[in-house]
Amino acid sequence: MPKALILHSGGQDSTTCLAWAMKKFGRENIETISFDYGQRHKTELASARKICKKLDIKNTVLKTDVFKHLGKNALTHDLKMTTPKKALPSTFVPGRNIFFLTLAAAYAYDRGIHDLVTGVCETDYSGYPDCRENTMKSLEKTLSYGMDYQFKIHTPLMFLTKAKTVELIKKLGHLDLLALTHTCYKGKNPPCKKCPSCILRAKGFQQANEEDPLLNPTS
Amino acid sequence: MPKALILHSGGQDSTTCLAWAMKKFGRENIETISFDYGQRHKTELASARKICKKLDIKNTVLKTDVFKHLGKNALTHDLKMTTPKKALPSTFVPGRNIFFLTLAAAYAYDRGIHDLVTGVCETDYSGYPDCRENTMKSLEKTLSYGMDYQFKIHTPLMFLTKAKTVELIKKLGHLDLLALTHTCYKGKNPPCKKCPSCILRAKGFQQANEEDPLLNPTS
Repeated sequence: MPKALILHSGGQDSTTCLAWAMKKFGRENIETISFDYGQRHKTELASARKICKKLDIKNTVLKTDVFKHLGKNALTHDLKMTTPKKALPSTFVPGRNIFFLTLAAAYAYDRGIHDLVTGVCETDYSGYPDCRENTMKSLEKTLSYGMDYQFKIHTPLMFLTKAKTVELIKKLGHLDLLALTHTCYKGKNPPCKKCPSCILRAKGFQQANEEDPLLNPTS
Repeated sequence: MPKALILHSGGQDSTTCLAWAMKKFGRENIETISFDYGQRHKTELASARKICKKLDIKNTVLKTDVFKHLGKNALTHDLKMTTPKKALPSTFVPGRNIFFLTLAAAYAYDRGIHDLVTGVCETDYSGYPDCRENTMKSLEKTLSYGMDYQFKIHTPLMFLTKAKTVELIKKLGHLDLLALTHTCYKGKNPPCKKCPSCILRAKGFQQANEEDPLLNPTS
C-alpha cells in the first residue's frame, strides 16, 4: 500500500519533491499524480512520465477540462489574462493549487494515502497566493475536515530559493533527474533561456554553482 | 455588478438559498452557478435553469468532467461506491463541496464577487463531512488566503431541519418555486416518493404542515 502521493508536474520543483519523498517514505511507498488540465505544453506530462518510468514509480494522469470552461488564462490560452489583481503574473489561475490538491486528496482518500507532497514555495515565485504556507496549512485542515480523514500536506521547498532546491536534489543523489524535467514557458527543448522560467532556473543553478543537466545532457 | 453567487443545484435546499439571497442582497445583485459534472439526472440542471429564468436571474452552468476521471461513484455511475468510510452513503464523493466551492470562488473572483451562498447543512443529511460548519469555515479561510481575496461563505441552512427549510422559503414568499425543483434520486418527475431523498423531503413538508407544490402543481 502506498503511503504518499506526490503532485508531479514534470518540472524541477516537483521532481525535487519526488526525490525528497523517495528518501522520506521509500521508493516503493510512493506514487505520483499529474494533471492534464489543457496546459499549452503537453511536454510537462511527458517529462513526468519519463521521470517516473525511470524510477519505476506509478504516475497517474488525471484529466480535467474545468479551467478551459472557467475562463481564459495564459496557461491554457495564448492570451494575456486580466484579473483584478494587477500585481499577479498573467499565468495566474485563481486557486489552482487548491483545486489540484483537492483532487489529489480525493484520489488519495480512495487509496488509503494520508500524505500529500507538493512543490509549492513562497520564495522566487511571483506571489501566487495559493503557494503560500498559510494557504497550505489552512487547506490541510479543510481537506481533513471535509473528508473526515487526516491529511498531511508536505511542502519541502516552501522556504527554499531555487539555488537551495538545486542543492537539495543534488544532496539526495538525483541531480541527473533534472535532465528530464521541463521548465520553459515557451515549451521549448532545449529551453529558450529567455523566458522568466528559464531565467529563474538558470539563476538557481548559477547560485548553487552547478551545471544544469537539462542544458548539458550526458545520457 | 453582482454581489453574491449562489451555488444552485436545482434542488429544494439551494432554491431556498436563492430565495434567502434575493432578500439579503436584492434580486438584481445576485447570480447563480450550477455544475454539470456528469450527474445521472440532467433534470437537476433543467430545474436550476427554469427557476432562474422565472426569477430573471443569471444561471451559469460550469461543465467539469473530473469526477468521471477520478473514479466511480453512485452519483455519476449506476454503481454502489465502496469507500474506506463504511458509515458514509453510497453517493459520497470525497470533497465534492470543497471542489464546487473552489470553482465557484474562482468564478466569483474574476467578477469581483465576495459572497458565496451554498445550501449545505449538518442536519437531516447523512453525515457528509464536507457539508459541516467546520469544513465551510476552514474553506472560507483557505479560499481567502489562496486567492488573496476576502470570501464569505454563507450557509443559511446549516442548522435547519428540512421542516425549518420549508418554513423559511414560505416565510420568504417563494414556496411556489419548489414546484420547479428536483429532489428524487431516481430522477423521476413526478417523484418516486420511495427513495431516501423523496422520503426526507416529504417528512419535511409533513412536519412543517405544508403541501409540497411539486406534488400538487398549480401553475
